[in-house]
Amino acid sequence: MTETVPPQIDPPARLLMGPGPVNADPRVLRAMSAQLVGQYDPSMTAYMNEVMALYRRVFATRNEATLLVDGTSRAGIEAAIVSLVKPGELVLVPIFGRFGHLLAEIAERGGAEVHTIETAWGQVFPTSAIERAVARVRPRLVAIVQGDTSTTMNQPLDELGDVCARYGALLYADATASLGGNDFEMDGWRIDAATAGLQKCLSGPSGSAPISLSDAAVDVIRARKRIEAGIRDPRLDGDPDDASPDFVRSNYFDLGQVLDYWGPRRLNHHTEATSMLYAARECARIILEEGRQQVIDRHRVAGGAMLAGVQALGLRVFGDVAHKMHNVVAVEIPAGVDGEAVRGALLGDFGIEIGTSFGPLAGRVWRIGTMGHNARKDAVLTTLAALEQVLRRAGVPVGAGTGVDAAIDAYRAA
Amino acid sequence: MTETVPPQIDPPARLLMGPGPVNADPRVLRAMSAQLVGQYDPSMTAYMNEVMALYRRVFATRNEATLLVDGTSRAGIEAAIVSLVKPGELVLVPIFGRFGHLLAEIAERGGAEVHTIETAWGQVFPTSAIERAVARVRPRLVAIVQGDTSTTMNQPLDELGDVCARYGALLYADATASLGGNDFEMDGWRIDAATAGLQKCLSGPSGSAPISLSDAAVDVIRARKRIEAGIRDPRLDGDPDDASPDFVRSNYFDLGQVLDYWGPRRLNHHTEATSMLYAARECARIILEEGRQQVIDRHRVAGGAMLAGVQALGLRVFGDVAHKMHNVVAVEIPAGVDGEAVRGALLGDFGIEIGTSFGPLAGRVWRIGTMGHNARKDAVLTTLAALEQVLRRAGVPVGAGTGVDAAIDAYRAA
Repeated sequence: MTETVPPQIDPPARLLMGPGPVNADPRVLRAMSAQLVGQYDPSMTAYMNEVMALYRRVFATRNEATLLVDGTSRAGIEAAIVSLVKPGELVLVPIFGRFGHLLAEIAERGGAEVHTIETAWGQVFPTSAIERAVARVRPRLVAIVQGDTSTTMNQPLDELGDVCARYGALLYADATASLGGNDFEMDGWRIDAATAGLQKCLSGPSGSAPISLSDAAVDVIRARKRIEAGIRDPRLDGDPDDASPDFVRSNYFDLGQVLDYWGPRRLNHHTEATSMLYAARECARIILEEGRQQVIDRHRVAGGAMLAGVQALGLRVFGDVAHKMHNVVAVEIPAGVDGEAVRGALLGDFGIEIGTSFGPLAGRVWRIGTMGHNARKDAVLTTLAALEQVLRRAGVPVGAGTGVDAAIDAYRAA
Repeated sequence: MTETVPPQIDPPARLLMGPGPVNADPRVLRAMSAQLVGQYDPSMTAYMNEVMALYRRVFATRNEATLLVDGTSRAGIEAAIVSLVKPGELVLVPIFGRFGHLLAEIAERGGAEVHTIETAWGQVFPTSAIERAVARVRPRLVAIVQGDTSTTMNQPLDELGDVCARYGALLYADATASLGGNDFEMDGWRIDAATAGLQKCLSGPSGSAPISLSDAAVDVIRARKRIEAGIRDPRLDGDPDDASPDFVRSNYFDLGQVLDYWGPRRLNHHTEATSMLYAARECARIILEEGRQQVIDRHRVAGGAMLAGVQALGLRVFGDVAHKMHNVVAVEIPAGVDGEAVRGALLGDFGIEIGTSFGPLAGRVWRIGTMGHNARKDAVLTTLAALEQVLRRAGVPVGAGTGVDAAIDAYRAA
């Protein structure tokens, strides 16, 4: 053969301080290097049950239906929405950033009748505004992002479950960017469905989507049951002609089948992504060993230190700071500064990645994350030290050491 | 906290000789332990381009559109089918096992008008039978499994692309279980779309689905273009009201968007499952370093040795042996033997997993694999030696050493 094979994987050293993905905790990478077992091996089904129990604690829920969707966080979102909503049903999506648009888009593609309300990027909704829309639209499902990384905002959800319950709507929250780094109370806030990913505050790689479903959500999904030919059991599943005509339009994202795979029936669906399950399990173990509240507090402190640091460097912060997520801050690019050149110098000279943004904020802000494994003092200080140097060399007036000093002070005061 | 956290991952030692998943090559597990980089890091986009080039060689194609779907092999199947077929279009699925039913099921859920032809489990179709159905149905797409692990059969596809081309149909092949272990010529056989998984002959974990699409397939997908709000660029994407009404009903599986993420535009879609991409890259490197044809030959020889071994142990082989895949054999469970007890003893006493089956073959056959990293002489001989012991203890008359001798002879003759 004249063609050659590229060398073994050898990625450059990076400190990932953008809006995610962030560096995986080395423990997660080690967990993934464990050898595979069969998908019905007693050890594997025991690991699946452990994962369910671990993520109940991460989501703060008693929901039996707590498991993984095999795909990125977006796969979890689509599974939740298309399993909960039939074509033609009403969905309300309050949009305060890019990922709200994504929820609406996924519901639209699934054939739902989607109603949206929008607020300016950088703001969140008062619950009363959402309630007015719920009362007007009377949706089957309210689908909302908790933390939208495009704007860094963290939408308060604590009263929304009660609102939805009053109007007979289910509440789905996309907690991809927020879970683990910010308050989230699945049962306490009466949320019916929530999904996440591993690549933000959970310190893992993208590719597995934890999901939890309330009993009410499961009832909706079970009523749409359809078991594929080839593994249908006539004794348990009845005549195929009796199957619900409202079956989910996706096989992969039919959570009814996924529940039967994770449940006692162990009905074959996909072949579980074993290494990603190992990763998800270790992500949860790391959080629960440190303590769920302690991890949220660590994110609050690290985010507060980064916020103090960038402000002390003279940078303006975008949006309603009182409602930003702990784990990411959007910084306005100073006038006259080439934002991409600064990001390039940080990456090329210091090995540090910070983020750009989307849509109306593209080219206007940098997004700096402090999440998961990287919600650490050394990562915060290193980033601020490097950012000071890069800004200085770009001609931005910065006080030497001001960012690092403010962050150290913030850590001391925490 | 009174609740405890389970200990670190520590799966039992297993030799996975079922129909998949099989043991990952340790090189793949090591590749996955590499640290993450950002999704637009120059090193990451370079790895994505390398993966595209590597899988072109694995699929034996020049298709530019060769990439990964982030999910299990089933995710790749659904992405291919729902991106290629609009609701109401005609799809023909020739079914010769469980996974043919799956293709039909996925197409039905997607709203296609699905026509099926079936042959008995354990047989394949003559191309002429498929051609007659194509001529009658005139489908937009013929969707067919190459190797159906439920029956072990390997459907000849070498003439089917010409048949489809004559009738204006696209040809999709599900090569999940076969790719890497059996002949497969994407371009040589004129296949328009093919998907696979890592967990069979590619020696990796489930969770990433390589896919390749011909230019004709890409044209169909591009004509259904829809870019989600929030990242739409009016200069490049036109007015949203001009978007195709035939958009794909899934966001996650809309290969038009996935192509734009893997292509030069790098349009944000999902966050690539970085560790699984590292795994997929290493799987391809392993195959191409050994040589694509050499790996197929290794599967042929290992499968031939296993076949000779089980026959020498006095076991009957299920189905049309001349058309079975190299990498798996279905063995009839002898009368009076408790098949699950034998599998349990192999797993519990020897740490060796072999498979059961589905549907009409449930309880009738064991399925024994020789695939990927486990298509090795030592794995074949160890499995036969253990199977002999377990059968003997179950009261089955077996000649001492007959299985191992026959397999060694088969290796010598190869």
